[in-house]
Amino acid sequence: MIDDARGLLARSTHGTLSTLDPDTGHPYASLVAIAPTPAGEVVLLLSTLAVHTTNLTADPRSSILVRAEPRPDETPLQAPRLSLVGQTRRLDEPGPARELFLEAHPDAAAYVDFADFSFFVMRPERLRFVAGFGRMGWFDGPDWLTPA
Amino acid sequence: MIDDARGLLARSTHGTLSTLDPDTGHPYASLVAIAPTPAGEVVLLLSTLAVHTTNLTADPRSSILVRAEPRPDETPLQAPRLSLVGQTRRLDEPGPARELFLEAHPDAAAYVDFADFSFFVMRPERLRFVAGFGRMGWFDGPDWLTPA
Repeated sequence: MIDDARGLLARSTHGTLSTLDPDTGHPYASLVAIAPTPAGEVVLLLSTLAVHTTNLTADPRSSILVRAEPRPDETPLQAPRLSLVGQTRRLDEPGPARELFLEAHPDAAAYVDFADFSFFVMRPERLRFVAGFGRMGWFDGPDWLTPA
Repeated sequence: MIDDARGLLARSTHGTLSTLDPDTGHPYASLVAIAPTPAGEVVLLLSTLAVHTTNLTADPRSSILVRAEPRPDETPLQAPRLSLVGQTRRLDEPGPARELFLEAHPDAAAYVDFADFSFFVMRPERLRFVAGFGRMGWFDGPDWLTPA
């Protein structure tokens, strides 16, 4: 089942990010563009003007949901999805993460060098995979992450 | 702009729910089927077997993201989306919420009466609408909610 989950993440270009309001601890859901790494982490390019970036800067605890497109005969709840649970931190030296992200999102070249944008990486500590109705399980970070 | 946001929610059938792990306070992102009410709340049908239901039962603070399908010439980040921030609580007397939900999701008739499923309602306290790149704003719950 872990290979199906890895494949789903590898094909994903966007996800929903959950972060925490630093003042209240209230969760906050927002859309992000993502670039999965070969190791099983996720690269994000975020603006400091966005609510989720304020949240992550104060508290890196976060979750990202990625979903498969349902087949024509499926509802979205019947299609696979993966919840990554971990920490998202700013990369001081984006290096290969920048290349990876721009390969997945060529249109980001238009704003990647704006002063308010920075690269972040989400490192999963636990992952919940729902393969379909009633078929689900957890993976632990050490089992999930593979040497790059 | 609030009318665009209301229209987006009214057309949405699924969203990403953000909840809190009761042991750690870590956010958790998961997929849910939703039925928006005329008042601007959101009805959910959740299984007690699901992680998000355990989370909400311990702490009702939550967020739901709904997104418009991008047009063919748009990336997902260019399309409108709405983050609802509020409290999600179990309905002891689902009443009209049940009818509303089954109208939006006729396939749920197959499991709505299973013992582990219950109706919940999310009441937004604040909402963040991103109409497109750089066009965004907050709405407050009292401005958003309309008499049913």
